[in-house]
Amino acid sequence: MGTLREECGVFGILTPPGEDREPAFDAYNALFALQHRGQDSCGIAVSLDGELTVHKGKGLVPDIFSLPQLRQFQGAQAAIGHVRHAVNAESVNPANTQPLVVHHASGSMALCYNGTLVNGRRLREESEYRGGIFQGTNDAEVISYLIVREHLRTHTLEDAVINAMEYMIGAYSIILMQTDHLIAARDPNGFRPLCVGRVGRSVVFASESCAIEALGGTFLRDVAPGEVVIADREGRITSLHCRIRAARRAFCLFELIYFARQDSVVDGCSVGAAREMAGRLLARQNTVEGDLVIGVPDSGVAAAMGFARQSGIPYGIGLVKNRYIARTFIQSQRWEREKSLRIKLNAVSATVRDKRVILVDDSIIRGKTCARIVQLLREAGAKEVHMRVSSPPFRYQCHFGTITPRSEAMAAHGRTEEEVCRMIGADSLQYLPLEQLKTVAAGLDLDFCDACFTGRYVLPLPEGSAE
Amino acid sequence: MGTLREECGVFGILTPPGEDREPAFDAYNALFALQHRGQDSCGIAVSLDGELTVHKGKGLVPDIFSLPQLRQFQGAQAAIGHVRHAVNAESVNPANTQPLVVHHASGSMALCYNGTLVNGRRLREESEYRGGIFQGTNDAEVISYLIVREHLRTHTLEDAVINAMEYMIGAYSIILMQTDHLIAARDPNGFRPLCVGRVGRSVVFASESCAIEALGGTFLRDVAPGEVVIADREGRITSLHCRIRAARRAFCLFELIYFARQDSVVDGCSVGAAREMAGRLLARQNTVEGDLVIGVPDSGVAAAMGFARQSGIPYGIGLVKNRYIARTFIQSQRWEREKSLRIKLNAVSATVRDKRVILVDDSIIRGKTCARIVQLLREAGAKEVHMRVSSPPFRYQCHFGTITPRSEAMAAHGRTEEEVCRMIGADSLQYLPLEQLKTVAAGLDLDFCDACFTGRYVLPLPEGSAE
Amino acid sequence: MGTLREECGVFGILTPPGEDREPAFDAYNALFALQHRGQDSCGIAVSLDGELTVHKGKGLVPDIFSLPQLRQFQGAQAAIGHVRHAVNAESVNPANTQPLVVHHASGSMALCYNGTLVNGRRLREESEYRGGIFQGTNDAEVISYLIVREHLRTHTLEDAVINAMEYMIGAYSIILMQTDHLIAARDPNGFRPLCVGRVGRSVVFASESCAIEALGGTFLRDVAPGEVVIADREGRITSLHCRIRAARRAFCLFELIYFARQDSVVDGCSVGAAREMAGRLLARQNTVEGDLVIGVPDSGVAAAMGFARQSGIPYGIGLVKNRYIARTFIQSQRWEREKSLRIKLNAVSATVRDKRVILVDDSIIRGKTCARIVQLLREAGAKEVHMRVSSPPFRYQCHFGTITPRSEAMAAHGRTEEEVCRMIGADSLQYLPLEQLKTVAAGLDLDFCDACFTGRYVLPLPEGSAE
Amino acid sequence: MGTLREECGVFGILTPPGEDREPAFDAYNALFALQHRGQDSCGIAVSLDGELTVHKGKGLVPDIFSLPQLRQFQGAQAAIGHVRHAVNAESVNPANTQPLVVHHASGSMALCYNGTLVNGRRLREESEYRGGIFQGTNDAEVISYLIVREHLRTHTLEDAVINAMEYMIGAYSIILMQTDHLIAARDPNGFRPLCVGRVGRSVVFASESCAIEALGGTFLRDVAPGEVVIADREGRITSLHCRIRAARRAFCLFELIYFARQDSVVDGCSVGAAREMAGRLLARQNTVEGDLVIGVPDSGVAAAMGFARQSGIPYGIGLVKNRYIARTFIQSQRWEREKSLRIKLNAVSATVRDKRVILVDDSIIRGKTCARIVQLLREAGAKEVHMRVSSPPFRYQCHFGTITPRSEAMAAHGRTEEEVCRMIGADSLQYLPLEQLKTVAAGLDLDFCDACFTGRYVLPLPEGSAE
Repeated sequence: MGTLREECGVFGILTPPGEDREPAFDAYNALFALQHRGQDSCGIAVSLDGELTVHKGKGLVPDIFSLPQLRQFQGAQAAIGHVRHAVNAESVNPANTQPLVVHHASGSMALCYNGTLVNGRRLREESEYRGGIFQGTNDAEVISYLIVREHLRTHTLEDAVINAMEYMIGAYSIILMQTDHLIAARDPNGFRPLCVGRVGRSVVFASESCAIEALGGTFLRDVAPGEVVIADREGRITSLHCRIRAARRAFCLFELIYFARQDSVVDGCSVGAAREMAGRLLARQNTVEGDLVIGVPDSGVAAAMGFARQSGIPYGIGLVKNRYIARTFIQSQRWEREKSLRIKLNAVSATVRDKRVILVDDSIIRGKTCARIVQLLREAGAKEVHMRVSSPPFRYQCHFGTITPRSEAMAAHGRTEEEVCRMIGADSLQYLPLEQLKTVAAGLDLDFCDACFTGRYVLPLPEGSAE
Repeated sequence: MGTLREECGVFGILTPPGEDREPAFDAYNALFALQHRGQDSCGIAVSLDGELTVHKGKGLVPDIFSLPQLRQFQGAQAAIGHVRHAVNAESVNPANTQPLVVHHASGSMALCYNGTLVNGRRLREESEYRGGIFQGTNDAEVISYLIVREHLRTHTLEDAVINAMEYMIGAYSIILMQTDHLIAARDPNGFRPLCVGRVGRSVVFASESCAIEALGGTFLRDVAPGEVVIADREGRITSLHCRIRAARRAFCLFELIYFARQDSVVDGCSVGAAREMAGRLLARQNTVEGDLVIGVPDSGVAAAMGFARQSGIPYGIGLVKNRYIARTFIQSQRWEREKSLRIKLNAVSATVRDKRVILVDDSIIRGKTCARIVQLLREAGAKEVHMRVSSPPFRYQCHFGTITPRSEAMAAHGRTEEEVCRMIGADSLQYLPLEQLKTVAAGLDLDFCDACFTGRYVLPLPEGSAE
Repeated sequence: MGTLREECGVFGILTPPGEDREPAFDAYNALFALQHRGQDSCGIAVSLDGELTVHKGKGLVPDIFSLPQLRQFQGAQAAIGHVRHAVNAESVNPANTQPLVVHHASGSMALCYNGTLVNGRRLREESEYRGGIFQGTNDAEVISYLIVREHLRTHTLEDAVINAMEYMIGAYSIILMQTDHLIAARDPNGFRPLCVGRVGRSVVFASESCAIEALGGTFLRDVAPGEVVIADREGRITSLHCRIRAARRAFCLFELIYFARQDSVVDGCSVGAAREMAGRLLARQNTVEGDLVIGVPDSGVAAAMGFARQSGIPYGIGLVKNRYIARTFIQSQRWEREKSLRIKLNAVSATVRDKRVILVDDSIIRGKTCARIVQLLREAGAKEVHMRVSSPPFRYQCHFGTITPRSEAMAAHGRTEEEVCRMIGADSLQYLPLEQLKTVAAGLDLDFCDACFTGRYVLPLPEGSAE
Repeated sequence: MGTLREECGVFGILTPPGEDREPAFDAYNALFALQHRGQDSCGIAVSLDGELTVHKGKGLVPDIFSLPQLRQFQGAQAAIGHVRHAVNAESVNPANTQPLVVHHASGSMALCYNGTLVNGRRLREESEYRGGIFQGTNDAEVISYLIVREHLRTHTLEDAVINAMEYMIGAYSIILMQTDHLIAARDPNGFRPLCVGRVGRSVVFASESCAIEALGGTFLRDVAPGEVVIADREGRITSLHCRIRAARRAFCLFELIYFARQDSVVDGCSVGAAREMAGRLLARQNTVEGDLVIGVPDSGVAAAMGFARQSGIPYGIGLVKNRYIARTFIQSQRWEREKSLRIKLNAVSATVRDKRVILVDDSIIRGKTCARIVQLLREAGAKEVHMRVSSPPFRYQCHFGTITPRSEAMAAHGRTEEEVCRMIGADSLQYLPLEQLKTVAAGLDLDFCDACFTGRYVLPLPEGSAE
């Protein structure tokens, strides 16, 4: 795994008067817990003394926020924060960092979101034809214009949000801050996760429950698809719903398989448990003998453990990942890229030598990293390497909030399982069939978006999209 | 002098095909030459391969732009740049740095300006009522909205600019960049300087001619009040005029006295010559005897030399300024402020001891720096210190592009000359009368804004302004 | 685990003429692989065009070395590098960063070492009485003086090293660079690991084999206790031996248990395999029933897996570690220290709820982190938490290259197992007895330093040491 | 102008108990006042709670010291500081920054110096033959070894300094700090300036009196050639003298002409007055007619004013220097070097057009900058440009503390005045004869080093020196 990236993570906290908390420090810790959802830029906006202020920049959370920086935000009543991946070079534009703080006819607001609008370009053009100007290229300004435009005719910002949602088609989890309250909204299909919790009397919104737990808080519930949740200055939580009813839920299967953190519970489903279950299912259909099960760190480990437990084949730590990898420039500079995997991962010869290894990962995207890992294991003495993938063949580009290669660049696009197996150099290859993967969240009322496996997109794509 | 600050400096260059120049490097050098017009933030936007890109930040030009940074802008066809002072803490907001790059219905543009709109707040509100959103607090976004709105109904951007100028009341010198041409516009009263020149076949716009000379270029002429000058991709220069005719020109007298660089020629007037002439006029009305004329570095030196030459009293280097002063944090941190003048300026005892010193400066604003200099000279042994100021008593806050203290904070506000003299501790004090100051640009068809001396503002001020 | 830290890691590479490698880039990658051995400062010295040059500073390897920085070292013939922990505030002194480049009577040399001299203070004083001056406070200068002094009477540097080793008492692995060759030396007891390998025709020395593998190189062998290995400019390897014969080997048991990277082989012993074996041994003596085995990431996982496999109790991912933890300032700033564990580790409720958890870690030092983890698991719903430690009670301060708290600060110092169990809040606690731990490297001719468990130090400690 | 650079500036302050000062802040301000003596690196060492600590780095004083950094030095009892130029690329080595803090047999000391030892290399070798190791390449370590070696046999550090001075041949002004007292020493010839003063009850040593005045202190006297001055912890000043009696004083003439700040008094001579006098003398021998005298900023201005006053020809501000020049990377990057003068200096056309200009500078070294200035004036319309230099032809490399080009690179080396005149493109050229220059300090018991004009070096040069 490696070429698939989540676009963003969002967070918000509102602290009622008398509560001894520092929302900016909480936002720092929560964003740090959500760092896996985006490493290119981050930001925190606070409501401090009736003003909205933002600090943001390119880099990891600890790079952008120093203790003196956070101290300038001490005494804030509320904060929202964001981590993101840059889609491409163009979007590295600082004007694309979030949260966005905007001043408008009825005051000020700060906004951040996770997702992609499939009609973002059209909405942007509509705003432009009314005289709108855009400093960046992502949808945060588009959504801001929409909400602000609607707010000209509504009394409350939440009503404006509900109106605006009628125009927004796509995947989005939004958190909005006014000086004294927060609004969280999730798209009608519920593509991306969003949940609400409490820390003391403070209200917390976050992409994943792990961010709430990082603050020592309590998870309350997921924000429902199409729901708009308001936290007022007293810490009261109110729920509204947009007028759009989606034909069906469409929670991103890859949140379960790869994106979300293992200790999160998203839409009622424990991410760690789901991954282990996927590994078990994979083991049930397994046909080869093996001496050792190895998971690709970090995302393949849970499935590998499920596989090991189900199959009775022992699990071994056959691959070690450098825990400082987040920072080395080798990643970004493409320097000696072909050699760089060894900097990141190393095989443990003592563990794999002369073994028939069953290698488990969550997915195969381009197949290049996978091929190098297989080779690494062989060089370390593995006798056989059998690849097992805890999801179906990944064949189609995502248009709902994930950064994927174009479909043609994917290993499984236009290749049979046999061909992929040869491409990665494994002795055998098995994927987990889609219908089985969908059972990992058994017992939950969950319907998934599986477009990356099937090409059946839940919403119509904009013209000009690749597929 | 010291508490008076210019708000901004602007620059633009367009290089026709086949010309061997690097607009971004030129912008760097030109902004460096304009650094005296603003030290808080700066930025350069370029047109590169059909896209507009900007780099900007808080700090001096050499702090924000490194050689590698500039190299990323190599191959640009055009560039505009900006240096500015932050008016106050709030405006330190990064969203207020310029140039501003905006995408709109007809494409993209970059904009920077120098000045203040007196109706800026009203125009902002009008934009907001139409659904506009603002990320910063200065007028750059206001002007952008106006121009973009007009551009929805005009064929060319220059026509949009001309339309927009009908709504803009105040002082402004604007430079706009599209991917293949530049537009420069100056307010109908001509408050702030703006000129046009050539370097090779490239067209250059700048706040002051010294920026053109820094590139080895040739000054062509000033942009006239109300004029809109277009430089097209072939380097042709076209001139239009807005439909507003101002009752009179109103060039800022303080540009001559203090802001502009001594080697600049603004609106036909050599800054250095004007300052020296002011010193001569001051000498003609002088009534005391002195042994030595001393100028306060850097801005009082030219007038002091004029004074010395006219009066026959020798000029002496009695004050030495630390030439690294631009950088020390003492300025910004107010640390031991009362002691800090010595870090900046020192008196030369050998020169002033037992002398009757005539001390010349361009102006007295708060009077505190002046008082400390007088004291410094006395401590160094001066027998008498006679203060001579090459401008009239400064009494009223500027609303047209300069950052001044509130009127009440000014030494001459509500004080007689005698009282100011006592306040600064001098043996005598004389100002240059306004009618005399206005003759320094004799022979030129120039009419000045003298509101800071007289309180007679050229344009109506917004409600709620201090005076 | 958490309060125990290795002091340093060392690396060296020499590339013969005609070999297409960049020693500085190799050093960067190797130090990155050794980053777990020291995170406070790092440095690389190169031999470039007959001169020794060094770049070093405080921070992680990717913080100190940028690509442009490394490019300045392109074309180097050899490089040595170092990562280290600062022992305390005083030693944060930049003069203590390594490698040290010194000029002496016979030329220049660069030196880095890992370890502690127990007679370092006495040797320093002896140098001072001969007129030596010291800029820092660690032993690198002491060792340099010793070697340089001996070199005044020896023909070769290696002979000087052999002579100097007669005076050095303690734990040390040293790498020395002259412009055209490298020398590696290991103390006669072999406290700290040091090995030699090849990448192509280049010779590589490193603290751990994982650094050699990070370069795609081949591990040749460990440097023997008391051995001095020379790599000449042609890449030939020569071996000498110091004249001291230690009474016995004394390899640090904690290298196996905690410090070394799991994929390293140190003194013939696979670190990963040793840890798993320790877990198995721990399971054999286990007396309680459990539903789930959980390892504390990262260092407790291998032992936990061994425990699970041996006991048949399933392994579960019950604790998730934030993989960006290397950077957050919370660690260094002690800000809300009591809350900070959650930022680093989180328990997975879905996994541990209602379970009897067997929690495995490599050691208990102060006991505070351990107590918080037990609490975390209980809050996440664990029914019982049984602590199992894959090493004996840690009771005595290390004086041979590890940074430990003073003995009195250790949980097990002066406390019975029962008392420690109560202190950490677990339902039961078992340690692995020393004689069993020593069998993890069974079959190897290895004798260990076990002073931290027994207080029986292998070498006499300096007067004034705590015990 | 331009290519001649002082090597260093030194400063020290000792504050007796009960005195309300912050030595580190004083050092900051004083070094800032001495910044003209060295811009490549700087550092401050303090005695704080009985320990000596240093902070230093490459860059200007305000770049290396932030307010938080200085605050870490609050409460210091004493401080010494240093600014320096790097002699060449090699010496950019961080190990060459000063002050140097060293630990030795009798304790600790911090040292900084300004100058050059002509026998520095020999002394270094002698130290090396006794086992000394050197981390840097300049003389600070050499002097430290010497003093420390002597201190092994003396009771006090000052006696060690006096002994060491018997071995040191060359130019040096040294400041030494122990935890509770300071020692200042000046070479027996008195090449480089060094003075002592008081601020309150604190004792201050500095290269120039302007640093004492920057603190609001009082200049007491110059440290005499060969003198050793001690400031003890009560602020008492004691004077000793080394045993070497120099044949004659040899104060650097260029300190007067160029290096020292205009407001300093060095060895009893007012720098500003001396420069003006040099200009007057130059005018007395002048034979051409002129309309305008112009000084090259900053160092030529005082002489030009003297010239103007003596000749009766008016002084004009014909050249304007960018006051932010200290920072632009153009200087260091040699980018478009030929164009860069305009970035730094600009001619004022309105002032020089159609004028016969007499251009005054303090010296001509390589002649390149001078040639460009002449050209600049001609391009700005000057009818004639007559060059007048307030010192004799500069022909020989300095070996006593100044960084100069090699003799062959100097304009006047092997060229007649006529040839130099042609080289710089002036209409005429006159230098100030040496015997006249020496009279500028008339009435003072001062003898000068004039080797740069005559090649008669005061001390024997080391073998291998250029001349």
